[in-house]
Amino acid sequence: MARKTYDTWAGCPLRFSAAALGDRWTFLILRDIIFKGHRRYRDFLNGEEGIATNVLANRLADLERHGIVERKPDPKHSARSLYFLTAKGRDLVPAMLELIVWAERHDPQTEVPKPFGDRARADPRGFADELVDDILKRDATYLD
Amino acid sequence: MARKTYDTWAGCPLRFSAAALGDRWTFLILRDIIFKGHRRYRDFLNGEEGIATNVLANRLADLERHGIVERKPDPKHSARSLYFLTAKGRDLVPAMLELIVWAERHDPQTEVPKPFGDRARADPRGFADELVDDILKRDATYLD
Repeated sequence: MARKTYDTWAGCPLRFSAAALGDRWTFLILRDIIFKGHRRYRDFLNGEEGIATNVLANRLADLERHGIVERKPDPKHSARSLYFLTAKGRDLVPAMLELIVWAERHDPQTEVPKPFGDRARADPRGFADELVDDILKRDATYLD
Repeated sequence: MARKTYDTWAGCPLRFSAAALGDRWTFLILRDIIFKGHRRYRDFLNGEEGIATNVLANRLADLERHGIVERKPDPKHSARSLYFLTAKGRDLVPAMLELIVWAERHDPQTEVPKPFGDRARADPRGFADELVDDILKRDATYLD
């Protein structure tokens, strides 16, 4: 049987997800875009987990290659780039919310604010739609 | 600011998730337990992605350390182990379903059967409960 390489991990949905997301830093970059409003390279670089610049550049390029993130020139600093979620990237929000619900339940040190957890537990899809609206509004503030 | 190491990735819910799941092979092992009914080491090893035995052993140990998987002796082969999801592991099913919904939408080669996708899109939490029941029934067949 022909074994599959990462670039042919299509077909099975969780293999497809693993190829796109199966890396610790990828998760954190998506978190920073979705929940922290980060769009600039230096914002990601200055996150509290201390991502190395080569790892960050590599993961952002992976996310671009997977069509989850798109890079645009910063209108305020033409030599710099901004990173936005594509529609495909925004469609990851429901899965991210279910991971937050899971972590809230199982991490004794969880920092999930109770109202956020309540909303995610009660209506994850509706909450995801609201978060996507917030993401698009935030995007617009960078491109004005 | 003190930088965080993987073992202190508690607190932030997506960092906590990334520490536990942020690896391609971890996703595939969870997929195999949840959706393919795998419980034996050799079943994981013989998956179509061709996981190497040292990687498999390492990822199963990580999942045990995170309390997501528990190992029990195989009643039919006392020298062998079986791998089961804990309650914490079973609580990942809703997130896995949302990733399947995402992959079905964005992978042109998706192999998600239409009725499965329909159910996951329409009622992910109810579907997750059914899948957890199936997991527990499957577990019981190995421990009889």
